Amino acid sequence: MSNTAGQVIRCKAAVAWEAGKPLVIEEVEVAPPQKMEVRLKILFASLCHTDVYFWEAKGQTPLFPRIFGHEAGGIVESVGEGVTDLQPGDHVLPMFTGECKECSHCKSEESNMCDLLRINTDRGAMLHDGQTRFYKNGQPIYHFLGTSTFSEYTVVHVGCVAKINPAAPLDKVCVLSCGISTGLGATLNVAKPKKGSTVAIFGLGAVGLAAAEGARISGASRIIGVDLNAGRFNDAKKFGVTEFVNPKDYDKPVQQVIAEMTGGGVDRSVECTGNVNAMISAFECVHDGWGVAVLVGVPNKDDAFKTHPVNLLNERTLKGTFFGNYKPRSDIPGVVEKYMNKELELEKFITHEVPFSEINKAFDYMLRGESLRCIIRMEG
Amino acid sequence: MSNTAGQVIRCKAAVAWEAGKPLVIEEVEVAPPQKMEVRLKILFASLCHTDVYFWEAKGQTPLFPRIFGHEAGGIVESVGEGVTDLQPGDHVLPMFTGECKECSHCKSEESNMCDLLRINTDRGAMLHDGQTRFYKNGQPIYHFLGTSTFSEYTVVHVGCVAKINPAAPLDKVCVLSCGISTGLGATLNVAKPKKGSTVAIFGLGAVGLAAAEGARISGASRIIGVDLNAGRFNDAKKFGVTEFVNPKDYDKPVQQVIAEMTGGGVDRSVECTGNVNAMISAFECVHDGWGVAVLVGVPNKDDAFKTHPVNLLNERTLKGTFFGNYKPRSDIPGVVEKYMNKELELEKFITHEVPFSEINKAFDYMLRGESLRCIIRMEG
Repeated sequence: MSNTAGQVIRCKAAVAWEAGKPLVIEEVEVAPPQKMEVRLKILFASLCHTDVYFWEAKGQTPLFPRIFGHEAGGIVESVGEGVTDLQPGDHVLPMFTGECKECSHCKSEESNMCDLLRINTDRGAMLHDGQTRFYKNGQPIYHFLGTSTFSEYTVVHVGCVAKINPAAPLDKVCVLSCGISTGLGATLNVAKPKKGSTVAIFGLGAVGLAAAEGARISGASRIIGVDLNAGRFNDAKKFGVTEFVNPKDYDKPVQQVIAEMTGGGVDRSVECTGNVNAMISAFECVHDGWGVAVLVGVPNKDDAFKTHPVNLLNERTLKGTFFGNYKPRSDIPGVVEKYMNKELELEKFITHEVPFSEINKAFDYMLRGESLRCIIRMEG
Repeated sequence: MSNTAGQVIRCKAAVAWEAGKPLVIEEVEVAPPQKMEVRLKILFASLCHTDVYFWEAKGQTPLFPRIFGHEAGGIVESVGEGVTDLQPGDHVLPMFTGECKECSHCKSEESNMCDLLRINTDRGAMLHDGQTRFYKNGQPIYHFLGTSTFSEYTVVHVGCVAKINPAAPLDKVCVLSCGISTGLGATLNVAKPKKGSTVAIFGLGAVGLAAAEGARISGASRIIGVDLNAGRFNDAKKFGVTEFVNPKDYDKPVQQVIAEMTGGGVDRSVECTGNVNAMISAFECVHDGWGVAVLVGVPNKDDAFKTHPVNLLNERTLKGTFFGNYKPRSDIPGVVEKYMNKELELEKFITHEVPFSEINKAFDYMLRGESLRCIIRMEG
C-alpha cells in the first residue's frame, strides 16, 4: 500500500475553465478511490481529437470546469473497496469506455459496448456516487470520459483500466488508449482483410493511419489512402499506404475512381473521417460479391447514411465499429504485446512531445493539423 | 445418348404472348443444345413471384413472346459440345443464375455472383450465339432467366444446372431452384444465428418462411414474424415462427416494438419484402453490439436505404444477399441432401399442384396470395 492510500492527494492538473480557452495548470485535490475505483498516477498522456472536440464544446452541452484527457499510461497508486483485479504498482492504460464483464455485451464475444461503462461524454462525475473526485478550493471539477488524464493523479472505475505488461514503455503504449487502437482494430477485428487483398482507407489522420497500419500488418497488397489534404500523402507511406486518391482531383465520385483502379472495387474499406458522404463512398467503393466496408468516424447527429439497396443486395457488407471492437480490459493488453513483439509500430504515430506545463502546445499542434500524436510528459 | 440428341424436339410449352395475358400451351420446336449447353426434359416446375413479376411486365422492358419459369426439376436429355460435367439421364435443377467456376466471383469463397452467368432478366436468348432455342412456326420465342422451364424441354447453359442426387423426388426439390433456397441461405449462410438466438423475419411469403425455416434449423429460441397480413400468421407457425408482429397494430415503429419485446433488439433479422421501409426497420431492430440484418427482398430501383450512421457505429452489421449466397452448382446439391436427411422440410411450402394444362391456375393462386408454391406437373 502506498503511503498516500486513503488520503486526499494534492497535485497538478490542467483545468479547462471555459470552452475553447487555454487549459490552466492548477493545484487540485484528488479524493481517494471509492468502491470499485482505482487512483492512478499518470506518467504520460497523449492528446486525441475527442479531447479537443469537447473542449471546444461546439454543439454539445458544455460542462466546465473540467479535466480532459483520455489517452494515457500510468501506475496504480491505490485501490478502492472491492477492487481485486488491480493493485498498487500495476502498469495500466486508463480507458474511455469500460468492460464490466457482467452485462450481455461483455458476455457476448461480438460486442465491446458494455452496458454499465460504455463511453458517456455527458457524465462529469463518478458512477458510484455521482460526485467528482477532483476539487479546487472546495469547487468540484468535472471528469471527462471517466478518465481525466490531464492530471498527475486521477480516479477511474476499475472496469475502465487495462493492466498491461510492466515492461512496456508507457510513453509509447499510452497512445493505445483510444485512437490508434480504434483504427487498428477496425481493420484487424472488423474489416479483416486477407493477405494480398486491396484496402481503401478514407481519412489519413491518426485513426486512418492506424487502420492503414492494420492493413499493412494483414499483408494487404494495395492500400489506397483517400484524403482531401494532399499534404498527408507523403507521411502516409510510412503506414503502408501504397496509392493516394484526392477526391478533389476528379470530376467523378471517388467510389467510381477506386472501382476503376481496382477492377470493380476494393476488397475492404475503412472510413475514418465521420463525413457522411465519405461513408457512402467508402461503402460503394467495395467490390460486389465480397466487399466489406467498415465505418469508424463519428458523424454529425443529423446526418443520414443513404445508398441504393441494390448496393447491399449485391453482397456488400456494411459494418460499424466502436473502439475497433476491442474489449478494453480483455484485449488491449494483447495490443500492447503486438507492439512489444515489433508487429505493430507505434513510434511513427508520435510526432511531438511536450512537458505537462506546455500542454496547450499539444492543442495548438492538433488544431493546426501538424501532429498525429503529441505525448505529454507529466513529470517535468 | 437419347435418340432425340442432335434433333429438334417438338413439345408443349406455355407461351406468354403478351404481358399479363394467360399463357397458351403451344407446340413449339426446341433446338438442340449448342456449345456448353444442355437440353433438359422438365418433369416438374413451380411458380415463383419473379415469373409473375416479369410476366406482368410492369416497369421492365417487355420481351414477348416468352417462355417463363425458372424453378424446376428435370433430367438431362442431351448435351452440347464441350459439356463434360453432365450426361443424359442426370437429375438436375435448372438455375436462374449460374456458376462458371472461372471468374473472380466463382473463385472467391464469399461470392456467388458469377460474372459470366449472373442473373440477367433482360436477356431473352442464349449466351453462345444470341439466338433462342425455342421457335413456333419459325418465330423465335424468348427465353427467361436462361431457364424457361414452362416447357416440356428447354435448353440451358451448363453453368446454370445443378446435378443432384437421383433419389431425390423432383416434385419436391424443384422448389429449391430459387425462392426457398434464397430465404434458407439468407439465414443459414449470411445471418448465421447461433443456437438459442432471436431472429426477426420481415415478410412471411415463401422466401420469408424459408428464412424462418433456416432459423428453426439453426435452433433459434424466438422467431418473430413481421407481416402486414395477419392471415399469414397461422401458417407461419409450421415454419417455426413463435411470435407475430403486425406493424399496423402499433402507433410506433416496428423496430421499436421489436426492441421492447427483446430487451434491445433481436440478434439477427432477415428482410424478405423488398419494401425499403421494411429494410430500414429490419436493420434498426437488431441489437447493438452484435446484431446482423440481412436484406433479401429486391427494392424498387429508385428506393434509397436511409439510416442514421450511429446505428451502424453501434456495431450493427448490414449485409445483402443474392440467392442466399449459395453457389448454384457447388452448393444446391447439398441443400437437396438436407431435405433427404429430413433436416429441411419442403412439403409445407407446397400448397398446390396443377397439371401443365392448367398452369394459369398457378398464376391465379399466387396473384390471390393463396399459394406458397404450386407445383406444375409437366406430364399429365
